Amino acid sequence: MNVVVPFAGETPKTRLEPALDPDERVSFARAMLTDVLTAIDDAGHEPTVLSTSPLDLTVDARVIVDDRRLTPAVNAQLVAADAPIAIVMADLGLVTPAAIDRLCTQPGEVVIAPGRGGGTNALVVRHPEFRVDYHGASYLDHRAIASEIGADVETIDSFRLASDVDEPADLVDVLVHGTGRAPDWLRSLGFELETGDGRVAATRE
Amino acid sequence: MNVVVPFAGETPKTRLEPALDPDERVSFARAMLTDVLTAIDDAGHEPTVLSTSPLDLTVDARVIVDDRRLTPAVNAQLVAADAPIAIVMADLGLVTPAAIDRLCTQPGEVVIAPGRGGGTNALVVRHPEFRVDYHGASYLDHRAIASEIGADVETIDSFRLASDVDEPADLVDVLVHGTGRAPDWLRSLGFELETGDGRVAATRE
Repeated sequence: MNVVVPFAGETPKTRLEPALDPDERVSFARAMLTDVLTAIDDAGHEPTVLSTSPLDLTVDARVIVDDRRLTPAVNAQLVAADAPIAIVMADLGLVTPAAIDRLCTQPGEVVIAPGRGGGTNALVVRHPEFRVDYHGASYLDHRAIASEIGADVETIDSFRLASDVDEPADLVDVLVHGTGRAPDWLRSLGFELETGDGRVAATRE
Repeated sequence: MNVVVPFAGETPKTRLEPALDPDERVSFARAMLTDVLTAIDDAGHEPTVLSTSPLDLTVDARVIVDDRRLTPAVNAQLVAADAPIAIVMADLGLVTPAAIDRLCTQPGEVVIAPGRGGGTNALVVRHPEFRVDYHGASYLDHRAIASEIGADVETIDSFRLASDVDEPADLVDVLVHGTGRAPDWLRSLGFELETGDGRVAATRE
């Protein structure tokens, strides 16, 4: 299956600002992108990066540049698709081939892996009329859009697919459960787990 | 399977303080406990509440009172068990019978459903020597404990089991994905989803 991975490369992951400086955020976003592409490839699928600007990074994937916002850029891919297609966010720092496999092998005209906070972290679209709308509580909007066109919806209950890495607290999950370059990159910067009052934090020396 | 649900009823969910007053936090914790017990029952298992104090709430479950901290109280249950046993946290506001079924039917001497932030939200124990240690990054500690006794470990990759409801941001997930009393209770207080800058919040009038 063609798996499209949208990527905004210019000023990524601003909410990680308390933990990482701008250059580090760029490097970390690229490490997570690479992990997502590798997981897709290892699961036997074909990754395509849908980037807002030319990708200054060598990846083992097709690259499409589209400088529009997320929703119209993804919808252009859905319009052009003549086969089932998946859309997977680039910041899933806990992704594994097994999680991608669960997503892509789940039957359904629209398959949604929700993200935390009402979002949609991964989708499989097998209905020609389905379109995305990533603004707001997109999980609910995507269910409504599918209902309007009579498409059946299935969901994937996956912690790994639900975990987009946006905030410093999310780095804990990358260190504990990540399996690719992203956790290695964090450790190379000195990040480690620290248990204080019972909650675990990702801190650097 | 006997499924033990630890519950600390006195001053629960203090990190929800910005969103709920103390009485409301008690009511919300009870609504989530009820949802967890119902999901266990609907999945065909036998819930037991392991409460730090006598439970001032009518539940359709056996109740054991043990005023010790979480780790020794749970370990006393593991020591006493003569059959496979599950331990499921009481604050899983997104739980469903299907998620409980995935947990309880997964083979393995120790089955772990990780929680966000390095925690352990649900466990199945089929090895007589396994003991818990909930302090710190318990997911890693539980893997290490299992390794020390030669028990094989499986994990359950579930967003619903990974989502313990601790902070106001977590209420969004309860409103979007919850199926029991907890989301109804939040709505009865006027909580609803609000999309501002792109992130979704749970706000009340």
